[in-house]
Amino acid sequence: MDARTGFPVVGMVGGGQLARMTHQAAVALGQSLHVLAVSADEPAPLVSPNVSLGHHTDLDALRKFAADCDVLTFDHEHVPTEHLRALLAEGVEVRPGPDALVHAQDKLVMRRKLAELGLPIPDFAEVTSVADLHEFGQWPCVLKAARGGYDGRGVWILDSPEDAVIVDELLAAGTPLLVEQKVPLRRELAALVARSPFGQGACWPLVETVQVDGICVEVLAPAPEVSAELAEQAQDLALRVASELGVVGVLAVELFQTDDGIVVNELAMRPHNSGHWTIEGARTSQFEQHLRAVLDYPLGATDALAPAVVMANVLGAPEAPAMGADERLHHLFARYRDAHVHYYGKQERPGRKIGHVTLLGDDMTDVRTRAKLAAHWLSHGEWLDGYEIH
Amino acid sequence: MDARTGFPVVGMVGGGQLARMTHQAAVALGQSLHVLAVSADEPAPLVSPNVSLGHHTDLDALRKFAADCDVLTFDHEHVPTEHLRALLAEGVEVRPGPDALVHAQDKLVMRRKLAELGLPIPDFAEVTSVADLHEFGQWPCVLKAARGGYDGRGVWILDSPEDAVIVDELLAAGTPLLVEQKVPLRRELAALVARSPFGQGACWPLVETVQVDGICVEVLAPAPEVSAELAEQAQDLALRVASELGVVGVLAVELFQTDDGIVVNELAMRPHNSGHWTIEGARTSQFEQHLRAVLDYPLGATDALAPAVVMANVLGAPEAPAMGADERLHHLFARYRDAHVHYYGKQERPGRKIGHVTLLGDDMTDVRTRAKLAAHWLSHGEWLDGYEIH
Repeated sequence: MDARTGFPVVGMVGGGQLARMTHQAAVALGQSLHVLAVSADEPAPLVSPNVSLGHHTDLDALRKFAADCDVLTFDHEHVPTEHLRALLAEGVEVRPGPDALVHAQDKLVMRRKLAELGLPIPDFAEVTSVADLHEFGQWPCVLKAARGGYDGRGVWILDSPEDAVIVDELLAAGTPLLVEQKVPLRRELAALVARSPFGQGACWPLVETVQVDGICVEVLAPAPEVSAELAEQAQDLALRVASELGVVGVLAVELFQTDDGIVVNELAMRPHNSGHWTIEGARTSQFEQHLRAVLDYPLGATDALAPAVVMANVLGAPEAPAMGADERLHHLFARYRDAHVHYYGKQERPGRKIGHVTLLGDDMTDVRTRAKLAAHWLSHGEWLDGYEIH
Repeated sequence: MDARTGFPVVGMVGGGQLARMTHQAAVALGQSLHVLAVSADEPAPLVSPNVSLGHHTDLDALRKFAADCDVLTFDHEHVPTEHLRALLAEGVEVRPGPDALVHAQDKLVMRRKLAELGLPIPDFAEVTSVADLHEFGQWPCVLKAARGGYDGRGVWILDSPEDAVIVDELLAAGTPLLVEQKVPLRRELAALVARSPFGQGACWPLVETVQVDGICVEVLAPAPEVSAELAEQAQDLALRVASELGVVGVLAVELFQTDDGIVVNELAMRPHNSGHWTIEGARTSQFEQHLRAVLDYPLGATDALAPAVVMANVLGAPEAPAMGADERLHHLFARYRDAHVHYYGKQERPGRKIGHVTLLGDDMTDVRTRAKLAAHWLSHGEWLDGYEIH
């Protein structure tokens, strides 16, 4: 408890852009986010004064950090589950708790749980040998590391039985594996919800996430051309997952849309890239909502504030632009006076998420075009010409 | 220049809530606001890691602070003008510069300049003796300290010639004085604009500021029952002041509305209480806009995002509420799921501005009622009953 203000202290493990933007939201609530970061030049330590340096796999560092906080939450899924159980046993408030978070840490645990709940998921099987892959018998199929992957890492598409040899190498390296059906997806959607310890749930409009090479490049809110039934089904599914798994905080349910409906791809239990649009595009942002949930405050309204909202990630360009970041931002604002820019304080590197830009409007195609042009300009320093949405 | 990100570094002198909220806006622009604060427990140092402790009247402290920044701006008007001139002479970028800022620091300089520009102002005169007051000859009249007053401090209403004796005492204490006509005001308005070094101007909708005992308690955006002509006149006036005085950053022009039109009350050259509603109520907030101006970025769109926006200040209650701040916030969110709360990290003291709450909607009376109930609840821990707008 902060004795000066009477507010509880929230600590976030991980110092990336999610913690950075959570700090911005925390400031409004009379808070100052405490951050456990590996390095002082990560996005969040650059903007919060309450930083502990230490590794999220170091139980002593976690324990010491937790001692200054009333409640612990997360910028990522990489804290070992056993450490969280140890902290919980020592009386630390951990939100989401390890029994929930493990479903976002371990894809095999998640698949088994969702199967048990009868929720729509791809066919899957644990892989402990090449033989398991052959037994699964679907080609092409998707081989995944059960733990540790993100942004397309830890995922391998195997086209035919000959590709199965990769399994030996991965198992030898200690990577726990599962195989999944390669879903014939039309596109990807995400259902973003929040749940408080009290059990209150709230959901934002269903969005489409546009991926390139396994990395999210755009989020369209609301997802275009979705029936009210499908949107409700996706939201109900996400709220049910949050409730059944005992999630506290924001839960992002990444979905594949197929010709037959939706199946769950991944879960994330923290603010998520698919929810960055909520900062300006919804009454309550995912960052404030995550804090409200973690603090067990009633959740905020989730209405969208425009008919069409598009968030486009600014990814580091393959080659450093001739024009500096500051000058690019200058020109962006000259062209789009209503663009909302978020930079994460990161150095530019090819493919790295260094920021995002959000635009709002009445027409999705128009808003999407502007958002894509804006994000491409910020990363590449060039305006796409004769651009068409693909 | 921040070598990592390529963005210039902005330093703000003063660590109050304006710096705190400017830091929030800075984070999105890839910045981390550098703050010169008197004490580490002021609102901004609590949330920014880049804090220098030092007094804003200490030229060496200012000089040392400026050495780490590419541009200097202000949370308040209390830096001595001669210090700013010294910094400027040493090559420091000061925005707004001393020649502009002096008009927000010295009411006599401001009155003379606005008179010279032919802008609507109350009758006024410098006061260096009781005789000056008698020569001014208007009763009642308003005696003001030319420098150093705020939130109703440094202002005395003199009803009759007998009250003039206060002048001797104030002059003996070294307070520079002026006297002004007591304007028969119907209400107070504020025109908020921004100006970049390049000379671009932008203005938000004209607002009404509701004052109690010289302290702003509510801001209604847009000001109700204002003709388009009056709104345009006020906005043109504010843009002209910004241009004529060479303001860089946000300029708030506080106005009195009389039966005959408007007259200028005060100027502030920084984000201002009358603009807090822009955080959620306008496309670009005054805090981001101030940074954009200071960085010489093109200014952002200033459209209002709802037909009615009300910001109500949360002022410390006369007696500490039985219920703690955290519990009050909990109940507020339970009642108003769309309330936007901003706490400044200050300890509660009677009459102190400890935060504000903003609500948006379609009907001004409804929004105002909710904002007043919300702010009163947060400060007093009691829901007003049978409440009516007065």
